[in-house]
Amino acid sequence: MTEQVGTTRPAGATGEGVSAHRGSGMAADIEEQPGVYAELLDNHAGAIGEVAAAIARKKPRHVIFTARGTSDHAALYAAYLTEIRLGIPAGLASPSAITVYGARPDMKDALVVGVSQSGGSPDIGEVLRVARESGAQTLAVTNNPASPLAAAAELHIDVSAGHERAVAATKTYTAELLALLMLVESIRGEGTLPASERAELGKLPELARAVLADDTAVELAPRYRFAERLITTGRGYAYPTAREAALKLMETSYLSGLAFSGADLLHGPLAMADPDVPVLAVVGNGPGGQTMREVLGRLGERRADVVTIGADVPGVVNVPTPDVDERYAPLLDILPLQRLALALALTRGENPDAPRGLKKVTETL
Amino acid sequence: MTEQVGTTRPAGATGEGVSAHRGSGMAADIEEQPGVYAELLDNHAGAIGEVAAAIARKKPRHVIFTARGTSDHAALYAAYLTEIRLGIPAGLASPSAITVYGARPDMKDALVVGVSQSGGSPDIGEVLRVARESGAQTLAVTNNPASPLAAAAELHIDVSAGHERAVAATKTYTAELLALLMLVESIRGEGTLPASERAELGKLPELARAVLADDTAVELAPRYRFAERLITTGRGYAYPTAREAALKLMETSYLSGLAFSGADLLHGPLAMADPDVPVLAVVGNGPGGQTMREVLGRLGERRADVVTIGADVPGVVNVPTPDVDERYAPLLDILPLQRLALALALTRGENPDAPRGLKKVTETL
Repeated sequence: MTEQVGTTRPAGATGEGVSAHRGSGMAADIEEQPGVYAELLDNHAGAIGEVAAAIARKKPRHVIFTARGTSDHAALYAAYLTEIRLGIPAGLASPSAITVYGARPDMKDALVVGVSQSGGSPDIGEVLRVARESGAQTLAVTNNPASPLAAAAELHIDVSAGHERAVAATKTYTAELLALLMLVESIRGEGTLPASERAELGKLPELARAVLADDTAVELAPRYRFAERLITTGRGYAYPTAREAALKLMETSYLSGLAFSGADLLHGPLAMADPDVPVLAVVGNGPGGQTMREVLGRLGERRADVVTIGADVPGVVNVPTPDVDERYAPLLDILPLQRLALALALTRGENPDAPRGLKKVTETL
Repeated sequence: MTEQVGTTRPAGATGEGVSAHRGSGMAADIEEQPGVYAELLDNHAGAIGEVAAAIARKKPRHVIFTARGTSDHAALYAAYLTEIRLGIPAGLASPSAITVYGARPDMKDALVVGVSQSGGSPDIGEVLRVARESGAQTLAVTNNPASPLAAAAELHIDVSAGHERAVAATKTYTAELLALLMLVESIRGEGTLPASERAELGKLPELARAVLADDTAVELAPRYRFAERLITTGRGYAYPTAREAALKLMETSYLSGLAFSGADLLHGPLAMADPDVPVLAVVGNGPGGQTMREVLGRLGERRADVVTIGADVPGVVNVPTPDVDERYAPLLDILPLQRLALALALTRGENPDAPRGLKKVTETL
């Protein structure tokens, strides 16, 4: 996509200089994702395999992920993968215990993984530094091999998504997802991505292209033109997708996106659901999606306005995505939701490339 | 508080039968909290100390907490305590990896703690059962010693809050907080609550009484009469308070409560803040509160409508709470927020004792 500075900028553009057309940067980032998948699979499986081999040799007793914002959702996905595919307990750590309160937990049995597209957040770097000092194996997953985070960790994975134009992360998020999936599957293979897995992953670029060619989600944008809040929900592997969709909608369209695991939704927030609060439910065809059927039923009792992403549920508006094993679905299901966030922001006259009040690299201590 | 069935029920009461006056159950639960604190401190330090001694002997290499809803916020508080006060890595686990996808992580170096007021959620019980089978030390923290969760775990702590009348949890939440705090400090004391700590904790019932006697938060209810969404934020020990406040407001008043750690707020959701989205910021006087000053500054730039709980910040409406060490603050700062949720629900004509669509015991798989 070519930038056309100063030619056709719409009235009301904020002029923050990220791109000529509002949203053209985010649109380009989104469209590049199939190519980013192909690049990772074709040219980085070896480097990721070497990191996997080092981890397989060390045999961590547990894995601690630390991240912020969008990268926290990639970390959450990786925590599910770690428990389900590797049988190693995994959790997400709050950096502030270490960075604000000076905690020095003994992490010598642990693999500690920091995920950050910029690699520039000081708190994530500090967690890795403390972890390494305490004897943990440390890994940085970033889109910037020259970043402080990459330097702080013993191991580094470059997610190789290329320059991201918009402030709202899209292709760096899915590149993190795929790099972490390739890592986990390569740990299973003790340093090599098993051939059967590689064959499945090899289908993702084409599947992603097909998903991006479907405009169902974009056509939903007018439905949410005046929505001030929206619930997203999913279970298991689909929960990170629900959280990332909520964040993307908040960042670009300034509506309140409330993300809940399907189970947590039933523990309280369900009371909030009514016909005036739209719900986006990410529903796969595997075990996570099965448990969402009860959640959809309870939302139906509350006459909530539900749209499903993935499975087609009778009587509910559906955004179709391919029927793949649930562990691959996060790489596809988020794509229409990114496009919805972009389209909704434009419908509302906002500039998703440069959301108000945000910078590309957020430095928190 | 005496129930006066059928005498002075206000017009519009939903008649769901939990109490005579809408909100009288929740009000009674809230008022009992100082007494619950005194009960735990006076009569349960020995039992909690025995559990602490068993954990101190076993020396877990890491701690995994698992919980849902309100209890998840108590678990988050305990994870901070575990890292900061015990120097043991701690994290929150997603039950679905185990209960939905059949993961069987090797947890034999871990202490696995399930927190649930009812002790009746099947997924939390299943996580403890699997953890115990894999050799983990297991602990159930519940308000029901006869519950399936208490039976599933090797160790049990009864938070002894008594019968909770309202569906929205209040006194069981703070009882969980205090029981977990007593546990962690007793592990530091290898089975005994150190005398200095006991002295500090002994002040909590009186401090809680003083907080409940201050009506500042209740007087804020009209301010939020027509708010559809509200942001809560805090950092470190104050983050669980922010999350619990958001959930309480969702459950009782059906507004969208969006909780963010102060750091995560700067990584995206800040874009959503404007003068029309109220913010409740939990700000202590310790290191967590210090890091919130930047967050308040950034919210000020966005001209957000901010109310602080705790520290008095110039130019911002303040709900005062006692100036205590930040690790005690969650036991006090949530009290005015519970009362605000109750008052707001009543202002809106809702019945906080029986929120629409919810049951007291939520069973998720």
